[in-house]
Amino acid sequence: MAASMAKFLQKLGGGLGLVTRRYQSNNGVSNLWKLGKLNHVAIAVPDLEKAASMYRDVLGATVSETVPLPDHGVYTIFIELGNTKLELLHPLGDDSPIQGFLDKKPEGGMHHICIEVDNIEEAVKTVKENNIRPLGKKPRIGAHGKPVMFLHPKDCGGVLIELEEQ
Amino acid sequence: MAASMAKFLQKLGGGLGLVTRRYQSNNGVSNLWKLGKLNHVAIAVPDLEKAASMYRDVLGATVSETVPLPDHGVYTIFIELGNTKLELLHPLGDDSPIQGFLDKKPEGGMHHICIEVDNIEEAVKTVKENNIRPLGKKPRIGAHGKPVMFLHPKDCGGVLIELEEQ
Repeated sequence: MAASMAKFLQKLGGGLGLVTRRYQSNNGVSNLWKLGKLNHVAIAVPDLEKAASMYRDVLGATVSETVPLPDHGVYTIFIELGNTKLELLHPLGDDSPIQGFLDKKPEGGMHHICIEVDNIEEAVKTVKENNIRPLGKKPRIGAHGKPVMFLHPKDCGGVLIELEEQ
Repeated sequence: MAASMAKFLQKLGGGLGLVTRRYQSNNGVSNLWKLGKLNHVAIAVPDLEKAASMYRDVLGATVSETVPLPDHGVYTIFIELGNTKLELLHPLGDDSPIQGFLDKKPEGGMHHICIEVDNIEEAVKTVKENNIRPLGKKPRIGAHGKPVMFLHPKDCGGVLIELEEQ
């Protein structure tokens, strides 16, 4: 039944000129989108230079300059780890989305993980169908200039998950 | 001065038959060990099957069976993300190291990140010299059968960091 529906959608999509590739995961889940790599782990820190110094000067990681992202209310520093990266976040401006986190956890901590998807609209449809609440009505352009959507931590085992289209 | 000391150590190490390779990172930090990839992000969850189901049945990730690790006081499930993995942790037994975390955060959350190093003894020396406190006197064998050491979150911007020798 699911397979015939997939074929129907593919045929329909082909007829309409739409992309309706359907991915079959190793465990048999069939979605119109595909999960990708861990893009980054975001860490909110009270002292950006102190945290950057630990990764750069003690651990020897490759660490970026401080990048202000006023539209997102954060300063950010990227820590390259070869296969993925850490992103240090610090509040910028009066309405930073991470100020509340630091108010509760002044020493800082892991804020969210970001996982790549190849189609954010379809991914959001799937999570909604499975009663995982997106934080927002539509994907918006994230810190890397790509469409992103955050998912409610209460629906994701206590973890704030960001999906980012690649 | 640092360069001549490195040469001296190399010569001494060569004479003694020791490995004393010295790594120069992109930012000029010179250590006797090298930082590697992000091995995993560990997530403590109150309901292992529910969390595994979200990653497997909704997001379509490749998810392992439940692996009990009685020596470490945890059940664990691995979520493969291509470039790295998530590890779901749930308490096993009466003295689980993650029970305290779940007592404070019953909905679960990110517990630690694990970064690979090529020489755990040298890495621990370096972090100690820089006033980052290891949690324990000596590296011990971790959940993957490799020597590991955890670092104090208060010295690491609020993040519990595990270093694992590869």
